[in-house]
Amino acid sequence: MYVVIPAGGSGTRLWPLSRAAHPKFLHALTGDSRSLIQTTLDRLAALAPPARTFIVTGGAHAAGIARQLPDLPEENILVEPGPRDSAPAIGLAAAIIHARDPEAIMGSFHADHLVRDEEAFRAAVRAAAAVAREGYLVTIGISPTAPETGYGYIRQGAALGDHDACRVEEFKEKPPRAVAEEYLASGRYLWNAGMFVWRTATLLEELARQLPDLHAGLARIAADWDTPHGAETLAAVWPTLPKVTIDHGIMEGAAAWGRVATVPGRFGWNDVGDWDTLARVLAAGDDGNIVLGGDRAGLHLAIETRNSLIAPVGGRIVATLGLEDIVVVDTADAVLVCPRSRAQDVKKLVDALKAQGRDAHL
Amino acid sequence: MYVVIPAGGSGTRLWPLSRAAHPKFLHALTGDSRSLIQTTLDRLAALAPPARTFIVTGGAHAAGIARQLPDLPEENILVEPGPRDSAPAIGLAAAIIHARDPEAIMGSFHADHLVRDEEAFRAAVRAAAAVAREGYLVTIGISPTAPETGYGYIRQGAALGDHDACRVEEFKEKPPRAVAEEYLASGRYLWNAGMFVWRTATLLEELARQLPDLHAGLARIAADWDTPHGAETLAAVWPTLPKVTIDHGIMEGAAAWGRVATVPGRFGWNDVGDWDTLARVLAAGDDGNIVLGGDRAGLHLAIETRNSLIAPVGGRIVATLGLEDIVVVDTADAVLVCPRSRAQDVKKLVDALKAQGRDAHL
Repeated sequence: MYVVIPAGGSGTRLWPLSRAAHPKFLHALTGDSRSLIQTTLDRLAALAPPARTFIVTGGAHAAGIARQLPDLPEENILVEPGPRDSAPAIGLAAAIIHARDPEAIMGSFHADHLVRDEEAFRAAVRAAAAVAREGYLVTIGISPTAPETGYGYIRQGAALGDHDACRVEEFKEKPPRAVAEEYLASGRYLWNAGMFVWRTATLLEELARQLPDLHAGLARIAADWDTPHGAETLAAVWPTLPKVTIDHGIMEGAAAWGRVATVPGRFGWNDVGDWDTLARVLAAGDDGNIVLGGDRAGLHLAIETRNSLIAPVGGRIVATLGLEDIVVVDTADAVLVCPRSRAQDVKKLVDALKAQGRDAHL
Repeated sequence: MYVVIPAGGSGTRLWPLSRAAHPKFLHALTGDSRSLIQTTLDRLAALAPPARTFIVTGGAHAAGIARQLPDLPEENILVEPGPRDSAPAIGLAAAIIHARDPEAIMGSFHADHLVRDEEAFRAAVRAAAAVAREGYLVTIGISPTAPETGYGYIRQGAALGDHDACRVEEFKEKPPRAVAEEYLASGRYLWNAGMFVWRTATLLEELARQLPDLHAGLARIAADWDTPHGAETLAAVWPTLPKVTIDHGIMEGAAAWGRVATVPGRFGWNDVGDWDTLARVLAAGDDGNIVLGGDRAGLHLAIETRNSLIAPVGGRIVATLGLEDIVVVDTADAVLVCPRSRAQDVKKLVDALKAQGRDAHL
């Protein structure tokens, strides 16, 4: 199969570490020295060789990705002329792959998620591929472990024959707490993790049906891709494509038509959405503290500090005293301090910086 | 009169701003650009001209003091060959002044305290000088406004004739909370602020009586001070002097002999002992926050942050979200985060750094 990684989005809730110029997928956040995108490709290597692995990203990140992934062929880093959301990004890769291999099955996975049980993850992808062969757009849904309000949900319908899979009845937006609790109790819902597996032919058919302008534009780009006019056509057509997500533009409409299936995933998934989410999946040391960054023991000086996430990535000593459940992130030009319970609101700080025009800190 | 400022001690509870190499008296902490020692001398300028103002300090701080106080004669910066506590430091200045002016009255004041009502402060010093002329060692005690456990106390005895002054019955160590409350309720106690006024002759008599070795050593140093052997004698004698504070070495014994008087001070005094103490005397802005450092509005980015002290003196953005009563100090090589209620324990962090041999951060 083929693997596609749309690598966009800066991860503003992981500010000040994650920045527009150095988004979270380029950072090592898991305790070892591998970045999230490196870890993502490591996990997928057994499913697709580098020649069948594609990354779709912006011009600002192509060089960083190229250096972090030396085995990836340069031509497999597809550089968008500008950000146009996930349907054009994933569609571009699908169209290019399809032009070369009309029978291709591809999986699309985020560049910045964590998976605990990698073998179970790959088994789920293989199961999804088997369903995809039958003409479904398949999403790997995550069996929920808590009434999370930060994720979208997938309502499962009828089981699909021999597969450990169901039809998808409906995609649901991030719910309020009470609704999330109902979802969890019903046992019918999965988290939407944005992991998709399909035949490129199936996706392109759905694109033609639901987003014909996008389909036509991508077809023009793909037709010229392997010619000397490739870059020219991409630059000319790309800005005319509709800006739309794969969820809203394709999956919701396809589900209504009965063309979406889901395979449940039980492999310990985390979207590393914010500092608190990250803290919950990393191994804590003494007193429940998680310390990110190179010289751990050295740079965090703690007295009576518990269940806190400390990231002394700026190289300075971070001294904490009498604190619990707090986040302290020190970088070269900014320091963040907030309770773990407020980690989702870090985005508001980034919004404030934006409103003040302080681009250097974004 | 003469003014003597013993400028020693690094103020470890104001770490990471205050350092051994750049102690708190050299820092601007009050919101304007004047350092604490500059503010101290500004306050005393109306009582003694620069020629009658002396600073006793260590070799590491002489240059910093000289640059911050360009009007002070160089020879009035008395450099100790090594730290030997306050009795030798203050005694050295007294002996040198006395050798030149046997009728001298001198006041000794810390380099790093804050005073709100400077006119009332000077009135108290003048009142103390009048009592000192009668042969008392006079301390200016602070009328307590709260049952502080971080200060020593002075028990007032009988009133002294026409003066707004009393005999001192006893000096008391820092009390536990319950005792401090009794002191406050009794109305008989003042805070010991380490402000002394006396005739140099009176102090030297008490030195001769209570610390004869120190007296003899200082006499040898003072005798040679204005000769070509001055530095040589200082270097030879200084290391032999007893290491003792003026409170334990002189004041306690003198009080027992009835030779100490106190003048109450009501001028808004603060010893800037720790970040919380400092926060309490500075003018707070929106939401009760105090922001120290140059570009205030610019470097503190706050969402729902209240009653906190933020010192972005390292030039980085300090972003705080959902916090109350917290201290965040960002410097070039260290960041401190702690609740205001734990500000006294910052010393423990410095002790930990010392124990780890991390001298660069002390």
